[in-house]
Amino acid sequence: MTDHYQTVVIGAGSGGMTVAIGMAGLGRKVALIEGNHVGGDCTNVGCVPSKTLIHLAKNFKPGMNPDDALREVTCKRDALRDKETEEVKHLKNVTFIEGWAKFTAPKEIEVALKDGSTRKLTADNIVIATGARPRLLDIPGLTKERTLTNESLFDLMNLPKHLVIVGAGIIALEMAFAFQKLGSQVTMFALDSRPLMTAIPEASEVIQKELDRRRISTHYNATAQGFDESKRTLTIKQGDGFITLHNVDKVLVAIGRVRNFDSLGLEQVYPERGRRAGVKVDPRLGVLVNSFGETNVKSVYAIGDVTPTSAFTHSANAQGRRVVQRIAFPYLPLVKKEPLFPNATFSDPEVAAVGLSEKQLAEYCHPGIIRRIRVDFKDHTDRGYTDGIENGFIVVDAVRLTGQILHATIVGPSASEMISFFTLAISQRISLYKIYRLVYPYPTFSSGILKVADFFMRETLTNLGKELAAYLKYRFAKPS
Amino acid sequence: MTDHYQTVVIGAGSGGMTVAIGMAGLGRKVALIEGNHVGGDCTNVGCVPSKTLIHLAKNFKPGMNPDDALREVTCKRDALRDKETEEVKHLKNVTFIEGWAKFTAPKEIEVALKDGSTRKLTADNIVIATGARPRLLDIPGLTKERTLTNESLFDLMNLPKHLVIVGAGIIALEMAFAFQKLGSQVTMFALDSRPLMTAIPEASEVIQKELDRRRISTHYNATAQGFDESKRTLTIKQGDGFITLHNVDKVLVAIGRVRNFDSLGLEQVYPERGRRAGVKVDPRLGVLVNSFGETNVKSVYAIGDVTPTSAFTHSANAQGRRVVQRIAFPYLPLVKKEPLFPNATFSDPEVAAVGLSEKQLAEYCHPGIIRRIRVDFKDHTDRGYTDGIENGFIVVDAVRLTGQILHATIVGPSASEMISFFTLAISQRISLYKIYRLVYPYPTFSSGILKVADFFMRETLTNLGKELAAYLKYRFAKPS
Repeated sequence: MTDHYQTVVIGAGSGGMTVAIGMAGLGRKVALIEGNHVGGDCTNVGCVPSKTLIHLAKNFKPGMNPDDALREVTCKRDALRDKETEEVKHLKNVTFIEGWAKFTAPKEIEVALKDGSTRKLTADNIVIATGARPRLLDIPGLTKERTLTNESLFDLMNLPKHLVIVGAGIIALEMAFAFQKLGSQVTMFALDSRPLMTAIPEASEVIQKELDRRRISTHYNATAQGFDESKRTLTIKQGDGFITLHNVDKVLVAIGRVRNFDSLGLEQVYPERGRRAGVKVDPRLGVLVNSFGETNVKSVYAIGDVTPTSAFTHSANAQGRRVVQRIAFPYLPLVKKEPLFPNATFSDPEVAAVGLSEKQLAEYCHPGIIRRIRVDFKDHTDRGYTDGIENGFIVVDAVRLTGQILHATIVGPSASEMISFFTLAISQRISLYKIYRLVYPYPTFSSGILKVADFFMRETLTNLGKELAAYLKYRFAKPS
Repeated sequence: MTDHYQTVVIGAGSGGMTVAIGMAGLGRKVALIEGNHVGGDCTNVGCVPSKTLIHLAKNFKPGMNPDDALREVTCKRDALRDKETEEVKHLKNVTFIEGWAKFTAPKEIEVALKDGSTRKLTADNIVIATGARPRLLDIPGLTKERTLTNESLFDLMNLPKHLVIVGAGIIALEMAFAFQKLGSQVTMFALDSRPLMTAIPEASEVIQKELDRRRISTHYNATAQGFDESKRTLTIKQGDGFITLHNVDKVLVAIGRVRNFDSLGLEQVYPERGRRAGVKVDPRLGVLVNSFGETNVKSVYAIGDVTPTSAFTHSANAQGRRVVQRIAFPYLPLVKKEPLFPNATFSDPEVAAVGLSEKQLAEYCHPGIIRRIRVDFKDHTDRGYTDGIENGFIVVDAVRLTGQILHATIVGPSASEMISFFTLAISQRISLYKIYRLVYPYPTFSSGILKVADFFMRETLTNLGKELAAYLKYRFAKPS
């Protein structure tokens, strides 16, 4: 027996749920397939438990038991998971199917159910939202019991005395700060040459200072050599030298993610046509899509972590909303450009950015046209003074003369909350001249935004001739 | 001997400094007169010490000594004051004069110097930036030693065991939360019927819940009757009943501010013209000015707390910037409308608002045209869940159908940082439709902004006929 649905969504994470709820809300018949937990990474092994842990660690006080914090994380995670699972099962117009999906034909899906049987579905539209999983690392001698990834981390019952973290990206940094606050000795090592390689170097510098200040040991350009279980020592290689880490309790591997598309049978989408490929996939970047989430195959969409786009819950949700619009209102004009995806790292201080990355900037325009403004909270805001902030800043890259904002990075308390100001300003093309006219509550970190505009105005108005000349010279110059 | 200046600024607080530095930076000869401390309320008895205290109280941990926190506040305040005083004395083009200023003629000022002598100045422009002082309250039996205002509060060396606060406004609330965290028993009473009368009632409700949760006793519609020094009891009257507060150590009076203009000799501005009045003053509202800071007398300006505008440092600064522009570039067009002044209360949670107040809304349009959207952090954001936020919200008043934002209030962590998003949106007339298209980092409180837009869209699009009818009916209706 084959059931037919208007839309089949594979994966009940943030992105998949957005599509399922969105389509069902419009009265379409939806099947939502999930082999693992409802809520995906975000609810189960990502944002929700990690931010709960970060919040508890921030408020951790002497005399409290860190294991209680770990337990609370697990409890809150489970409670939300149960709630979401219940909700999904009772969503109007949504058939929730627990199992693993596989394409058997272009618009046909076979689900391997948990009882061993299979179920066939056909659909007008199929949305792949299968996410990603942690990339594993084989360290000789290291047992499974000692190894953690973000998938097992939030089941921890006891605080590791010495936690070693492999990696220096978002997850690695967030957990390094949180576990240090709970009382763990934390050591990080990574192949990267600095923390948070995706951010501007100035941000990495601040984060490194804070890592040092909190006595979190860091080793860059380093690889794992082996683990000696009898001595609990981990040896890492850095250049020609070796470093031995002692009394290691747990090793958290946070070196990136692998997109989940191998078992989807994407090659079956055109089984009858011989040489014609199925859904186009890049082994490293995942399922390839255009800005509307459309794959190369009509009526097959992909969103979230399984695609090359930024691997954030908010991106998956935004992509999901666009796919709903595309499927439900195909004739409605949809802005071709994807929205701006901000990013945020909940380290301490937080790092948030929006707009063009350094690489994109270099491709977009000649460096001579860009004026970079930096405002340090310590030196340029009274809030930095009252709150004793040593490190933290707002960096804005703007077009000289016009003040059009191309990129902003904030490092500091509430950076993740403040960045949306710039998302709005960039997407609505609001220049620094207009931003200068606003009044910001005093004393706040966001009053640093006024300083940014103030610095830009002063540099521009006092060198108007020079700025105009530079603008005219570089405006149509090729990116270097 | 009379010295002549292009601009004389009376008062070296935030507003006065903005004008002095601004004019001096443009090469004008400026005299800056201050009888008290450089930095005004903000540095000495306002934002800087209060936010330092709030920050230390927030991070106060068991085992720490609260008196150390009080001492640190005093030290940081003194350090900043000394630094600013030094800077002012060495500002290029600025003559800093310590003393009390008084008009002796329209463009003539006499300064009573600290050594008892006087000095006469004349000026092309005079800017009154004399600020305000705390309103006092005479409670029978209460000694000066037990009484505090924000002017003496930050010289405290020992934490009061029981602090009574008179008032329920911004200062009263900020200090109530801070001292409670440091370990004081705090009791508040006020003539007002709810905390933070200037905010929307929903905000007061949340603040009241948090006051209750922290066991800060509150008594509204209440007045002081008398203090018995021998028993250390304060009696207050509420309706027909009396309440006795026991073991009172200190009484902080925070019942509003009185504007400083009495001793300025404003009546001397036209001494020779008999019946013609001097600079127009309202006994309660202070020196009356237009949106450019101009008084009724040519070349005499007033800014900051001495004027009727919102009594915030950021407002004084913004007014100061406009006055500089007006004096220095009189022919440059200046937007007639004053900028939007946001407000922020650094209670816990913070309360911040921007746009039309409830009273202004009622005068501006018919209530039928307004759609109020409320998003609760607990129910509608995952950040509220991970951080265990019970109370807190975003409330937005928008025009039905068009989604134009008229007002926003945020109650929650980082509300003071998040509000600038709405300052930008309102001042640039960015509708909720456009705000819906933005991507907000997950999981943040500011992702609640997306929910606001989402709720508005849903209510509008699913009732399009009704909304259109309401819009047409009420758009040109008179405010009720």
